Amino acid sequence: MSAYWCELAWLGGEAPVPGVLIDVDEQGFVSGVVAHHATTPEATVLPGLTLPGLANAHSHAFQRALRSRAQAADRGSFWTWREQMYALADTLDDDALYRLARATFAEMALAGITLVGEFDYLHRSEALMRAAADAGIRITLLDACYLHGGLERFHDASAHAWAARVDSIEPGREVRLGAAIHSVRAVDPAAAAIVAAFAAERGMPLHAHVSEQPAENEDCLRRHGVSPLALLAGAGAVGERFTAVHATHLLEGDAELLRDAGASVCMCPSTERDLADGIGHPPGPLALGTDSNAVIDVFEEARAVELDERLRTGVRGNHAAAALLGAATGNGYTSLGWPEGGQIATGALADLVSVRLDGPRLAGTRRADALEAVVFAATREDIGAVIVGGRQLALDPAAVAAELSAAIPR
Amino acid sequence: MSAYWCELAWLGGEAPVPGVLIDVDEQGFVSGVVAHHATTPEATVLPGLTLPGLANAHSHAFQRALRSRAQAADRGSFWTWREQMYALADTLDDDALYRLARATFAEMALAGITLVGEFDYLHRSEALMRAAADAGIRITLLDACYLHGGLERFHDASAHAWAARVDSIEPGREVRLGAAIHSVRAVDPAAAAIVAAFAAERGMPLHAHVSEQPAENEDCLRRHGVSPLALLAGAGAVGERFTAVHATHLLEGDAELLRDAGASVCMCPSTERDLADGIGHPPGPLALGTDSNAVIDVFEEARAVELDERLRTGVRGNHAAAALLGAATGNGYTSLGWPEGGQIATGALADLVSVRLDGPRLAGTRRADALEAVVFAATREDIGAVIVGGRQLALDPAAVAAELSAAIPR
Repeated sequence: MSAYWCELAWLGGEAPVPGVLIDVDEQGFVSGVVAHHATTPEATVLPGLTLPGLANAHSHAFQRALRSRAQAADRGSFWTWREQMYALADTLDDDALYRLARATFAEMALAGITLVGEFDYLHRSEALMRAAADAGIRITLLDACYLHGGLERFHDASAHAWAARVDSIEPGREVRLGAAIHSVRAVDPAAAAIVAAFAAERGMPLHAHVSEQPAENEDCLRRHGVSPLALLAGAGAVGERFTAVHATHLLEGDAELLRDAGASVCMCPSTERDLADGIGHPPGPLALGTDSNAVIDVFEEARAVELDERLRTGVRGNHAAAALLGAATGNGYTSLGWPEGGQIATGALADLVSVRLDGPRLAGTRRADALEAVVFAATREDIGAVIVGGRQLALDPAAVAAELSAAIPR
Repeated sequence: MSAYWCELAWLGGEAPVPGVLIDVDEQGFVSGVVAHHATTPEATVLPGLTLPGLANAHSHAFQRALRSRAQAADRGSFWTWREQMYALADTLDDDALYRLARATFAEMALAGITLVGEFDYLHRSEALMRAAADAGIRITLLDACYLHGGLERFHDASAHAWAARVDSIEPGREVRLGAAIHSVRAVDPAAAAIVAAFAAERGMPLHAHVSEQPAENEDCLRRHGVSPLALLAGAGAVGERFTAVHATHLLEGDAELLRDAGASVCMCPSTERDLADGIGHPPGPLALGTDSNAVIDVFEEARAVELDERLRTGVRGNHAAAALLGAATGNGYTSLGWPEGGQIATGALADLVSVRLDGPRLAGTRRADALEAVVFAATREDIGAVIVGGRQLALDPAAVAAELSAAIPR
């Protein structure tokens, strides 16, 4: 048993709640939540606003090595950036990937990320699962079926070969497995149906890159006569456990399809800006991802959803701060197959992150505006404590920086 | 005489230069710059990348009090946000404004801003100049002529009354004066011509809000038959010392007009996102401003110019990192009437800011990519030293936060 006392906490409503006492049991679950409580000598005090731990629902950890580096190119696009990413991927052996991913996951821990969804098309599940465990955060390993195009070295021989490999993975304690269809570029409809059926049988989350670029839509329409999402729906992939990653350029009917299925969208706005993808407009439950890891700051992702929507529409106040915090926490946990996480409630995983309100970026925040302050003005440098399964992580930015510096290929 | 030795410095080219020794004379100007130099015992070492001090070419300091607070509204627009801003302005007496502005300028100093352009339509030049001096940064006080609409309490009686007031201002040591036309909403063409002639006679910079919102264009076209910029050009305002602030929705012919005149544009991308203004596409020299101060981080402004252009066009690599650093430094100094600043060169003002490359956000940066790292991945928390006129400011984030907290009205 341990306990945390939060100056303010977000319990899912429109406003923060003062004086929240959170009890945690020995299995790392919340065993009690009391609001408007005085602090107690047994409780660890968390100043500022405490949130559920942040879920990064879409990551390719190895792409952290491209940060800054992939900005030096001349005029280009998603497609020229992809060539740089392929060249990097080809240089990473298992040990190099492990070290790079561990350092990147440690950077995520600094940023309050307690659960990462690693969309793995390099097929290096062992190195990635070990890296997350050693960095102290939870992971959903989304093993991506990848049959055609792109990175030939990482091709699966067939969807059945993919399924056999996934069945052979032994997840560790804080690991869950998910399935992924890389994209309709890389997986044909018959193979997509095999992956979807596999995920359905095992109750796994299923993710896919969907309509990140207009060219992907055009190619799919030409070859198959339907949108990428409609193709995936035809393969039985689009249901409640499905997450469409990006969904930037949905075609007619796609939004209804997602909504009717109860599927999620994972936006990755900092990457969608960086790769010149465009501004998406997701229907239904929204999760957030850092994707290329050119930036690792979930607050930046959350506010970008709203700010880019403002640019698109000329209207403010499309997504409330509480809704964006839901995207950054509970919706991400659910999308990644941990529906018992991402909330501060009895029986939930005791994953928490506290955000100080007294640094110069947030100083002057009225309590009533704490949610808006964190979403619209905080950076990860405002984070205080990060707690996974009831245990507070020891955060050491200098050590993480040294680890990153050693792990990133020159 | 003092000296700084920079591990890397940006001297205006496409790449950073290693081992730069900068000598500073007793008047606070750079007296020598030697590249590829070993460090010396007399020089203060600046690790990471050293830039010229950052220029914030467009600020309304008092709006810092709206940070977070103005996000809680329901659906709205620039126009509903403006009502909240007016209500705040009405509560601030001289002392309250001084304290709020001093704390905000201190926050700017933390962010590496060594020169601020304060666009003052509250007509409180004394409080604002004193606030900047006490925070240790330079200021160009842009006194804005404001005749019609909006904040009636702050109306000038006439353009001549405005001119008499500006002539009565006694600028302090690190202060220069500039003229401003609030906007074509607030200043009619005849009055704009008086302001423009006044600025021209005195060689002052002249700034105006231009085409921030489509409604401003429509109103100007309806009333005057020309675009806001063309109206200002007709009043003799648009020349080399002119800066069009925002210029988000330029009309046909406006871009050529700006280019032919050699005028600058000041984009304020974080505010233009926040206020749902839209994505501008500036011709000619670009400066950057934090405007509403909902965010104070010039690196965020700089990358937003490129990232939002990527969203608009689907193309990467529109603005090189060096060009964006020029916008954040030399172009801003020139726009604000300090053409001898914003560069690291003999004879320039010794205003410098160093950015550490060894924190977790920038760890792993290769020297060759240092400009891209700072523009695309740094935040103000990566800033090391801030130097104004050769003297290093004592930065104390906790003290600034306390000052902000005390100064922001509840």
